Amino acid sequence: MNNFNSIPEPSSDLLKRAVSARKAATALGQSSDLQRKEALKAMADSLSARSRQIVDSNLKDLQRSSEEGLSQALLSRLKLDENKLREAIDGLRRVALLDDPIGLRQLSRELDHGLLLERLTVPLGVLGIIFESRPDAVIQIASLAIRSGNAAILKGGSEAKLTNESIMNALREGLERSSIKPESLCLLTTRQESMALLRLEGMVDLIIPRGSNDLVKFIQDNTRIPVLGHADGVCHLYVDSFADLSKALEIAIDSKCQYPAACNAIETLLVHSQVAPSFLEKAIPAFDKLGVKLLGDEISCSLGVDNKADESDWSTEYLDLILSIKVVNDIDEALDHIRSYGSRHTDAIVTEDDNAANRFLLSVDSSGVYHNCSTRFADGFRYGFGAEVGISTQTLPPRGPVGLEGLVTYRYFLRGDGHIAADYSSGKRSFSHIDLRL
Amino acid sequence: MNNFNSIPEPSSDLLKRAVSARKAATALGQSSDLQRKEALKAMADSLSARSRQIVDSNLKDLQRSSEEGLSQALLSRLKLDENKLREAIDGLRRVALLDDPIGLRQLSRELDHGLLLERLTVPLGVLGIIFESRPDAVIQIASLAIRSGNAAILKGGSEAKLTNESIMNALREGLERSSIKPESLCLLTTRQESMALLRLEGMVDLIIPRGSNDLVKFIQDNTRIPVLGHADGVCHLYVDSFADLSKALEIAIDSKCQYPAACNAIETLLVHSQVAPSFLEKAIPAFDKLGVKLLGDEISCSLGVDNKADESDWSTEYLDLILSIKVVNDIDEALDHIRSYGSRHTDAIVTEDDNAANRFLLSVDSSGVYHNCSTRFADGFRYGFGAEVGISTQTLPPRGPVGLEGLVTYRYFLRGDGHIAADYSSGKRSFSHIDLRL
Repeated sequence: MNNFNSIPEPSSDLLKRAVSARKAATALGQSSDLQRKEALKAMADSLSARSRQIVDSNLKDLQRSSEEGLSQALLSRLKLDENKLREAIDGLRRVALLDDPIGLRQLSRELDHGLLLERLTVPLGVLGIIFESRPDAVIQIASLAIRSGNAAILKGGSEAKLTNESIMNALREGLERSSIKPESLCLLTTRQESMALLRLEGMVDLIIPRGSNDLVKFIQDNTRIPVLGHADGVCHLYVDSFADLSKALEIAIDSKCQYPAACNAIETLLVHSQVAPSFLEKAIPAFDKLGVKLLGDEISCSLGVDNKADESDWSTEYLDLILSIKVVNDIDEALDHIRSYGSRHTDAIVTEDDNAANRFLLSVDSSGVYHNCSTRFADGFRYGFGAEVGISTQTLPPRGPVGLEGLVTYRYFLRGDGHIAADYSSGKRSFSHIDLRL
Repeated sequence: MNNFNSIPEPSSDLLKRAVSARKAATALGQSSDLQRKEALKAMADSLSARSRQIVDSNLKDLQRSSEEGLSQALLSRLKLDENKLREAIDGLRRVALLDDPIGLRQLSRELDHGLLLERLTVPLGVLGIIFESRPDAVIQIASLAIRSGNAAILKGGSEAKLTNESIMNALREGLERSSIKPESLCLLTTRQESMALLRLEGMVDLIIPRGSNDLVKFIQDNTRIPVLGHADGVCHLYVDSFADLSKALEIAIDSKCQYPAACNAIETLLVHSQVAPSFLEKAIPAFDKLGVKLLGDEISCSLGVDNKADESDWSTEYLDLILSIKVVNDIDEALDHIRSYGSRHTDAIVTEDDNAANRFLLSVDSSGVYHNCSTRFADGFRYGFGAEVGISTQTLPPRGPVGLEGLVTYRYFLRGDGHIAADYSSGKRSFSHIDLRL
């Protein structure tokens, strides 16, 4: 179940680069909001100036990958034309405008006269990012890292090698013209290195995988460094007995079809038995028309669903126009099903009964619990975070769609004037614990 | 480096108990502040009523363990007399008085007219706690779990078996007289079960190890469930060239000697070369008098430290009256040393130079960074949290001393009225993203 031993030890070159990223991170962690904003601006300017070269590198990557037989879908993800690059640069400039996540005072407490405790947000340190195909990810991730005061070690797919390198050259050139050290960003180029990155615990503080479920699972299973991401997104929509059925159908269609490859699309529809006949009567033709393949349990098949669902269907993330349907006798059965098969991503109920809605929202322990709306809203931009670092299906924070706050941690600052603990144990002094205004 | 394969698969009995803890947790997560407070009161009353029996069980455990040759130190940790029990019950009653960590609104945002996003704190779910020796830990941990709305599966040491069982019986008896399900607490009794507990990912949300560094390391290396705790606490005190040397000596003595077995005691003293002669002239006899064995680098040995430190000393947590001393040429050398050998627990600087202090506090990426005070303040009670769940040396939150907030997470609640994502993609509707008052 675990391949730790197959992961190579970091080479001395990788260790050297990680140490220099770590040193750069220390300096970056002390930079001001303005310095980081200006660095992002310099990065954007440098990308613009070098856009011709970046697009050319991408053409070479496309040509080579096409000759090597890369699939059409992956080629289209690899492609970075001038328009896409311009959009990525615009995105970078928008990240510069986001509120500074660093230096936020979360606690300010006088422990005793002259002994002040503060808790402030600080960068995590060094991010390790492993991504597949899309080269514009380099730009997005680099901008989020620098904005939040973190150094980043990036590893992209070999098919995008030349594109990634010319983007990284431009980004570092931009940093050279700013007060942020260019060593804050570094690109790994071999697969060997990217695997060894997983072993840099203590030097890399967070791994962010961007890619297929398999990539994410492999990384989660092969590192002790915390991983921000999710493997599965098995989301549910429960149509309650008190649902407005036309609302339910619209929400079901949106949740499945608006972008079926997204992790926040639903895979399973749970329908209360009381409304199942009338709901499915309309839903089956509607989904048919949209090209959605339906798989059902016994009852829903008896109500017109064509294909029988296997036990394995209930835990499958199709990422496609396929939907499994189960008829349940009550909300408890729906809750049990979600507890057993869900992935704690996003689950929704459609009902006009507020008691049922509240029960559902309090019982389902997914990061997103929704009432009368589409699961497709589970997204950092839609939540208004301005950026999305990833979506986490962990129980612990940060979970759900994660914005810049996922790239920061905090530190306790305690300032005294010779205060020692013995004085409090002996009773000579005592704690006041007075919270000060933030 | 990894022993996953030696961890047994959970037995069907363990799975059954975990499922029933998980169900109890769902109910517990919906309980009110008052219900949980009253449950804690009932637990305390039940412990008081059964205190005779608990103390008797403990006598039997002590007798058996003594016959089996348990060390005097461990026997004294195992001992639970009437006084210690009363203190533990008082502690439980104090936990009942802590502010409710559940249901705190962290975000309230209108995404669009009629589409409201809220982020509220919720319990983690099920805690897995593995602890050694001290049976009063059961009481403390059970109280923190129930207060924060979490179920808990506990595994104590076999030497305290009878004591732990009679405490658990009393606690569950208390819960039976409350509105919280007794299945919310469960005690594992065999080593086999406690190991299998590490495999219950998806059923157990957080593992809290309480015990030796070796126990913690073993657990961290053998589970994919997040672990709250720390293995090493290698804390440093840096005496700067602008230090008030008498303050520095008092703080050094307190940080090392006030309770040397604590994780927040210092292991290494870094001294600026300019003040090393005059500081060590006073410090060496002072530590001698207190029975502290000093180990030094070459320069500090030339200044009177008796024993030579090995390379391994700089990363050793002595948990004893032993202190390593290194003379550094400047603050950068001190920062480099801490970056190389520290464990990101707590590190302090003594200086009257505010610039040096700020530089130190911003550069050291430990969870606690202190100026002119003892590292021994790194403690949940001293920070005013009212309880300490553990101290984490992770980079990610929660880190440092962790109070009840370490036992909660959050969930996004989104309530709409038929809202679908397609309307926002098509431009038919647009997001307002208006933050509402919390």
